[in-house]
Amino acid sequence: MIKIGILGVGTVGTSVAKILEDNADIIEARAGKKIVVKSGVVKNLSKDRGVSIIITDNPLDVVDDPEIDIVVELMGGVDEPYELVKKALQNGKAVVTANKALLAYHRYELQTIAGDIPLMYEASTAGGIPIIGALRTGLSANHIDSIQGIMNGTCNYMLTKMINEGAKYDEILKESQELGYAEADPTFDVGGFDASHKLLILASIAYGIDAKPEDILIDGIENINQTDVEFAKEFGYEIKHLGIAKKVGDAVELRVHATMIPVESMIAKVDGVMNAVTVIGDRVGETMYYGAGAGGDATASAVIADIVDIVRGNQGPMLGYKKGLESGLTLLDKSEITTQYYLRLQVDDKSGVLATISSKLGEFDISIEAMLQKPTKEKNISQLLFTTHICKENKMQEAIKALEELESVYGDIAMIRIEK
Amino acid sequence: MIKIGILGVGTVGTSVAKILEDNADIIEARAGKKIVVKSGVVKNLSKDRGVSIIITDNPLDVVDDPEIDIVVELMGGVDEPYELVKKALQNGKAVVTANKALLAYHRYELQTIAGDIPLMYEASTAGGIPIIGALRTGLSANHIDSIQGIMNGTCNYMLTKMINEGAKYDEILKESQELGYAEADPTFDVGGFDASHKLLILASIAYGIDAKPEDILIDGIENINQTDVEFAKEFGYEIKHLGIAKKVGDAVELRVHATMIPVESMIAKVDGVMNAVTVIGDRVGETMYYGAGAGGDATASAVIADIVDIVRGNQGPMLGYKKGLESGLTLLDKSEITTQYYLRLQVDDKSGVLATISSKLGEFDISIEAMLQKPTKEKNISQLLFTTHICKENKMQEAIKALEELESVYGDIAMIRIEK
Repeated sequence: MIKIGILGVGTVGTSVAKILEDNADIIEARAGKKIVVKSGVVKNLSKDRGVSIIITDNPLDVVDDPEIDIVVELMGGVDEPYELVKKALQNGKAVVTANKALLAYHRYELQTIAGDIPLMYEASTAGGIPIIGALRTGLSANHIDSIQGIMNGTCNYMLTKMINEGAKYDEILKESQELGYAEADPTFDVGGFDASHKLLILASIAYGIDAKPEDILIDGIENINQTDVEFAKEFGYEIKHLGIAKKVGDAVELRVHATMIPVESMIAKVDGVMNAVTVIGDRVGETMYYGAGAGGDATASAVIADIVDIVRGNQGPMLGYKKGLESGLTLLDKSEITTQYYLRLQVDDKSGVLATISSKLGEFDISIEAMLQKPTKEKNISQLLFTTHICKENKMQEAIKALEELESVYGDIAMIRIEK
Repeated sequence: MIKIGILGVGTVGTSVAKILEDNADIIEARAGKKIVVKSGVVKNLSKDRGVSIIITDNPLDVVDDPEIDIVVELMGGVDEPYELVKKALQNGKAVVTANKALLAYHRYELQTIAGDIPLMYEASTAGGIPIIGALRTGLSANHIDSIQGIMNGTCNYMLTKMINEGAKYDEILKESQELGYAEADPTFDVGGFDASHKLLILASIAYGIDAKPEDILIDGIENINQTDVEFAKEFGYEIKHLGIAKKVGDAVELRVHATMIPVESMIAKVDGVMNAVTVIGDRVGETMYYGAGAGGDATASAVIADIVDIVRGNQGPMLGYKKGLESGLTLLDKSEITTQYYLRLQVDDKSGVLATISSKLGEFDISIEAMLQKPTKEKNISQLLFTTHICKENKMQEAIKALEELESVYGDIAMIRIEK
């Protein structure tokens, strides 16, 4: 019999305990051993969790318990779980974590500390979708050309509503908060930070890249409006919030942002709160993995998959590479990223403005690919929407600043990157 | 260093040898050891394979070679590979196979023979898509409610062309043969037999069901025409050739047939030669896995994933269950399957015919859900297209025979099953 201790018995922790009980038959059949939750750690002892396990508010009751074989870390946060996971590993216990922030910051230290002890994290990225397993095992023959993922259900729900139902950003944010899809402070989701943690985890398995959230380009969906949605439709794009990892020579681009992608691509067809990750390998070509990216049961499904895998005796290097054999790729500085861009500007509706803007862009080696001019409610002001040919991120950032300083341009310029 | 021997150095075998050489860097990093192909077995020694390995026409040179650690079986067929895989396992060698026919007939015997020696088969189902790993490991916490898979690229390519471009069945079959997507005798693909082998493999992992192709309902796409395609569009369906496994109480339905599915479902969006498998777990909900289902490199990608996994020291029960712990589900007799149906009939264009047909269906407890009557080129004959409410497969089969015997019905009745 294998005994589990859970650090953090919230929504996911409760689901883990319940599924291990409800589906004990099939889980024992698959793991080859009985798996039971012995104890769980909570902050608030007075709240009933509805599960029949020992509840404590002292994490050391789990981490130092010699009877516990596997510690499941579902606390959230970074520093406290880091210390506890470290201690559990040092005590010889296998660890399963769903904590993407912990891994975004400490995955390489944890890999070193773990050594030959299993430390698994399928639930940390894209919830119930077994994308870690696919990347770590199923695609191991491939150099990975690129990863594109819808890895934040809140963003995808909001964008789907904006695209399919013409909802306005503010309205749909409010609705998402009421439905529990978005937090009171939605920045972590709509600002792209949540997706960036997941992208960093996938990038480590695919490329052996050690980077932290602050090293990569992170953008959200806050500036998208119905004008952008309509432009995208007219030009054959869908707008999705994507985490993107891409090999460019010996470097790897990592970036998280709203993206216009061709409407016929598979990932463009993923709607609502669902997640999906497309991985292109140099031998297997395009593969995609689709499912629920959040929710207690879906996330618990991934946690338990890891537990079963550990009980079966499986392991292999935590991040998919044997230590010391990382592939030697480096992170491309975010200013060096090249892609196509869509821009939305409010400009004076008079002759010569187009020429001014186009020549200003030229100063930054940026040329226009397609353009649309629309009237606004305000007299003498029109809206200019255009896409550019491929250019450099830092040039685009400088160009936007320069354009915003022009007398004929009003307010902030909105920008969405394009991937074809 | 791990040494591989390949039984059958055809398209896939050549890809396996080449990828292990070309991607040796990343594969060694991921496996933790160098992996090299020592030798390969072919039927025709005179043909150049373009790979620098020892080539022999005697399989025992591989299977009995004490230097070989892992035997990769890519011969095709059933009896000869069965004997060779058995011998390799008895010699203590791990085996990786892409042979779906071998597994469709002998997976349980092979599991018993293998015992604790790894016998892996990711490449046997849906080519490069790591669906075996997903089902065997990633979803192990779940009772599986259902599996729906586009598991034959030829069928999906042909149906996509018929739906998106209005192509006729015979034309597109000829084109598929010219493109190499279909064999000279296409029955194995378009008749559903290829997909049935793959479905049986997935059903074993999901349900522990031991069945053979002749035990299950297998139908192809040969009788579908443009009238059906147009009807499907009008009523919000896409037509896909699916392998379906579904839990119904303590029984499992296994069936392979052309299927009308709602156009908005994810699997309906999978076009061309691509494969995809949707798995619904009781906890994770719907997940989908998409990618190339055939091709040398894509299939080799899956073969090598298994090799890497074996080298990492991973295993677990071959079919996902520890021996003796199968879940006790039984195969539902195919006559007992219940679903909705679409029928196409040529009938006399005169009053009373509808009533006759509807009352004849009533004798078999079948009621009509939606109906469309269309004129044909022949005077006094019209085409009747309708869908039924849920009924039993054996009743439907009997009803079709009875309808075909009616004086007012001409020729054979075409039938497509519906899944909502």
